[in-house]
Amino acid sequence: MKTVRRIFISCVLVVLACAALSTTIQAADPLPSWNHGAAKNSILQFVAKVTNEGSPDFVPPAERIAVFDNDGTLWAEQPMYFQFLFMLDRIKALAPQHPEWKTQEPFASLLKGDMKAVLAGGEKALGQLMMATHVGMTSEEFKKSVSDWVATARHPKTGRLFTEMVYQPMLELLAFLRENGFKTFIVSGGGIEFMRPWSQRVYGIPPEQVIGSSVKTKFDLRDGKPVLVRLPEINFVDDGPGKPVGIQMHIGRRPIAAFGNSDGDLQMLQWTAAGEGPRFMLLVHHTDEEREWAYDRQSPIGRLDKALDEAQRRGWTVVDMKKDWKRVFPF
Amino acid sequence: MKTVRRIFISCVLVVLACAALSTTIQAADPLPSWNHGAAKNSILQFVAKVTNEGSPDFVPPAERIAVFDNDGTLWAEQPMYFQFLFMLDRIKALAPQHPEWKTQEPFASLLKGDMKAVLAGGEKALGQLMMATHVGMTSEEFKKSVSDWVATARHPKTGRLFTEMVYQPMLELLAFLRENGFKTFIVSGGGIEFMRPWSQRVYGIPPEQVIGSSVKTKFDLRDGKPVLVRLPEINFVDDGPGKPVGIQMHIGRRPIAAFGNSDGDLQMLQWTAAGEGPRFMLLVHHTDEEREWAYDRQSPIGRLDKALDEAQRRGWTVVDMKKDWKRVFPF
Repeated sequence: MKTVRRIFISCVLVVLACAALSTTIQAADPLPSWNHGAAKNSILQFVAKVTNEGSPDFVPPAERIAVFDNDGTLWAEQPMYFQFLFMLDRIKALAPQHPEWKTQEPFASLLKGDMKAVLAGGEKALGQLMMATHVGMTSEEFKKSVSDWVATARHPKTGRLFTEMVYQPMLELLAFLRENGFKTFIVSGGGIEFMRPWSQRVYGIPPEQVIGSSVKTKFDLRDGKPVLVRLPEINFVDDGPGKPVGIQMHIGRRPIAAFGNSDGDLQMLQWTAAGEGPRFMLLVHHTDEEREWAYDRQSPIGRLDKALDEAQRRGWTVVDMKKDWKRVFPF
Repeated sequence: MKTVRRIFISCVLVVLACAALSTTIQAADPLPSWNHGAAKNSILQFVAKVTNEGSPDFVPPAERIAVFDNDGTLWAEQPMYFQFLFMLDRIKALAPQHPEWKTQEPFASLLKGDMKAVLAGGEKALGQLMMATHVGMTSEEFKKSVSDWVATARHPKTGRLFTEMVYQPMLELLAFLRENGFKTFIVSGGGIEFMRPWSQRVYGIPPEQVIGSSVKTKFDLRDGKPVLVRLPEINFVDDGPGKPVGIQMHIGRRPIAAFGNSDGDLQMLQWTAAGEGPRFMLLVHHTDEEREWAYDRQSPIGRLDKALDEAQRRGWTVVDMKKDWKRVFPF
């Protein structure tokens, strides 16, 4: 009897120990959606060394600035940039107030669903669609139109809310960096006011840490009430060589880590890499046509060509989405 | 003996209690350089109500945004804006590399010390001085020139470093707000890159929370090394109606508290006041010609006229520097 009891107790203890160990292992992995491999290791090693006070690579928390592109880096960008889809939806929503659009291009083609004709209009057509949906209203009215759309619009392929089309491994990475004293910023070619209404809720990034493209705005008093009116004039294009400019304008110091996915992020990564001390540069390579999309050098959206060459030449981390990510989306 | 001992012990206890009480009272005053009065009370009451979770006026920490003008609000601005003095000093420092300035206006007059002739040149002369000192170099070179100047240049009247010419009561106010979960920003007509090199050290405000006027910059590769070059073109004027625009561009949400001292801050205070929920607007009124300077409606620098009227009409807090501040400078 005594032996049986002893064996039983031993078994219970082993089970408990295993459970405890597995909890510890799980708790110890801050990036559970990343497969073990070079990409994950490079992140863990970088964060370990810059946060280790004894290390020559230690970086004080105030200087732990990390910048993230948005389209294709934090959320998907296919079959086209989500802000473009927002614009098309807004045209449809505003059409009842604009009967003249029924005969006026590019609105007429768009309302008939003839996207080919719309795109054939080129930059001029795009400019007209932007005018009708992005300017002429106050900053608060624009914010409301974005919030309403984000709360209801669905992705054409997955049927998910656009804010669900975010990459689970990148959400974990954002949280992991912040837990380690990093300040995380978005630096996107997309509209700054298009991202701010939901960046805190979705990414944990407050509006004051969002950098993007913008139109000019003008302070005005309407019936004594101050408003900011969005004007039909480009203020800043936060893409390519504009990204380091936007970073300097908004942050005023050089990031130590930069995350992108396309040639539009190349200068941001170059600017980050050129600082002194430890640096981390990462590109997300879209290689998974089953779970997401596969595209790079030939894609009109999110083209990754020169930046991929430079990453390989300089040893920057390149994430192979298919291989490195256990899971792509949160759903 | 027993009675004597009891009395002695009682005395010791009373002394200890008094000491403890006085420490508590001192510790309880977060604004020791502010005299008791309406201005100090209005600050304390505002902070108390927005941080009291039971209050209907409670504001979540993320929305506790406070914006501060710099010249005349956080540091002095007489006999002229300190950035203007920086510019004059830079011309003198650069003169050996520019022998042509000896005969070329406005440089020639400036180098001879004839400020009247320089100022007679108006905006054109000012523009030429700006060109020679603020653009054409990289952002890092400009930062170095500011840092060097701030470390050594002296105020013409007090002989103090310019970073000592800051208002002790405002330093206490900045710290008090931050202790209560506020995020403090500078929103100044001065140059954004002129303030950033020292804002953390002097005000506890990191570069990413500094908003100001700027020139355009351009990303470039010099011998393969990325640089940002400062161009001879105005990018943004963060003054008057520009301040709400700058706030929206950089912060993306409306402040709940705004601090200024001149008509250039009027729209910032109006924009802040027009939000929903509790609001706090304050103007520093320069009334102390003994300890600082006295000026308002007629001053070409820091003119306070329309904003003073509006503050009085709307019940904004107006600080009477002479009456409300126990101490002006830290020295």
